Amino acid sequence: MEGRANTLGIIGLGLMGGSAALRLRQEGSFERIIGYDINRESGLEAVTLGLVDELSSLAELSATADVIILAIPVNRAVELLPELLDSIAENTVVLDFGSTKEKICKVADRHPRRQQFVACHPIAGTENSGPSAAFATLFEHKVNIICDVDKSDSAVLQRVEEIMGQLGMRNKYMGSKDHDRHIAYVSHLSHISSFTLGKTVLEVEKDEKNIFDMAGSGFASTVRLAKSSPEMWAPIFTENADNIVEVLSAYINNLEEMKQQIIAHDTEKLSASMQKVNKIRTVLDGETIKL
Amino acid sequence: MEGRANTLGIIGLGLMGGSAALRLRQEGSFERIIGYDINRESGLEAVTLGLVDELSSLAELSATADVIILAIPVNRAVELLPELLDSIAENTVVLDFGSTKEKICKVADRHPRRQQFVACHPIAGTENSGPSAAFATLFEHKVNIICDVDKSDSAVLQRVEEIMGQLGMRNKYMGSKDHDRHIAYVSHLSHISSFTLGKTVLEVEKDEKNIFDMAGSGFASTVRLAKSSPEMWAPIFTENADNIVEVLSAYINNLEEMKQQIIAHDTEKLSASMQKVNKIRTVLDGETIKL
Repeated sequence: MEGRANTLGIIGLGLMGGSAALRLRQEGSFERIIGYDINRESGLEAVTLGLVDELSSLAELSATADVIILAIPVNRAVELLPELLDSIAENTVVLDFGSTKEKICKVADRHPRRQQFVACHPIAGTENSGPSAAFATLFEHKVNIICDVDKSDSAVLQRVEEIMGQLGMRNKYMGSKDHDRHIAYVSHLSHISSFTLGKTVLEVEKDEKNIFDMAGSGFASTVRLAKSSPEMWAPIFTENADNIVEVLSAYINNLEEMKQQIIAHDTEKLSASMQKVNKIRTVLDGETIKL
Repeated sequence: MEGRANTLGIIGLGLMGGSAALRLRQEGSFERIIGYDINRESGLEAVTLGLVDELSSLAELSATADVIILAIPVNRAVELLPELLDSIAENTVVLDFGSTKEKICKVADRHPRRQQFVACHPIAGTENSGPSAAFATLFEHKVNIICDVDKSDSAVLQRVEEIMGQLGMRNKYMGSKDHDRHIAYVSHLSHISSFTLGKTVLEVEKDEKNIFDMAGSGFASTVRLAKSSPEMWAPIFTENADNIVEVLSAYINNLEEMKQQIIAHDTEKLSASMQKVNKIRTVLDGETIKL
């Protein structure tokens, strides 16, 4: 890839794409960063905030950039990827940041330029969205999952691993099907439980003053993800529908079981079950020590 | 109350009782702080940590202390309160820290010394428990709900409001029945959703490495309360069973609705519903600004 201007193109200038731009600029990884956002206003905001050097059309971006990061809702990424691969040069590297991986990998597999694509899921995020939510350390000390790694060209893969390293991430490898199943449990379910918790409370607590006064840090913590972007998350839920329905059914069954124990005033059974779940502390603490 | 040694007695030397002890000692509110814990080991730890000056029997504590804080699981508080009121002097002030208020108020109402009792719910806590979890600023800038305020003697009430002020809390007033209904939504449901989330994930992710690697801050946040003490929380769930069953049923219905929308791949309906829930952001931010 020598001899060409070293240009990064980012499609989607929100929390994820914007944060990558900020960090990679700090790292001096690219000479130029150009961006595209379907929302013109977000694009202009990204320029004002200095996330990208300039805006570009999709056609121009795909023809110019050496590395292209797709940081848009998963359903739009799946639609856009084939067009994008059609129009890039033969040395261009494309990676995506989506939370679901099976469908985009399937779409990529049908394309003759599959080897130029690396399917990534950087496990990082906040409940905030848009260019103004971006910050350079979003990805630091987090894990990036690379899926179906053998389908990417080894030089292309190496370039992506390098970029992820510059973002401060540790790379892990997993099949796209496995990824989507596990992530339904440890991420998608959390978002669903949080959105539904927020919904349930808002439906009943019409007088918001009660929420102000009575909600402690516990409520704030469990409902935090209910602030997340619906544009980003609704497509994740439908793209990963099969896994999520399985996970959600298990969750609902466990809630029903707990409800029955509460109806029966079975303090002992409740306590025993909760004691087992307390183990999550060591699992989470293990994570903290490990990372 | 002049002329007597100014002694605070704390029954239950865990996160809540221990934190109150630490702060009230810093404030110099009492000449002496004595404590009792049903778990002898916790009691000794509380002395070692300097939470209390000395341990005492229940009988000695109730005969000696000018102010008694009950900071034990709600079911035990309900059992102990009548005995305690039986054995205190006529100027002693008793308050509790329980998360459910209707039952303890009912029990208190049947006692001739009802006026010496103030039913409190300091909305503060962490997922940690035991004497070592205590810290002096736990209650700072938080809300304390005082229930059925008209049932307490006005001098007794004033003393408790003063103590809560020394803990750094703002007092709010509410009927015990209303309290239990609202708190089921904004606190108890969060704990149930979190425990059940932890349970569901642990049941499937037998290989904990997947949780380590794939769980982001979102999972950590929604599952944090699953680390909470079962001894404290199982009785809260059964004491407040009627309200919780109502709340939990509404939550399960909303989850079922979301599941159907996911099965139908109805991205639009999901997104519209989630957009409404995003409003929780302003509600929670309102709280932050307000407190």
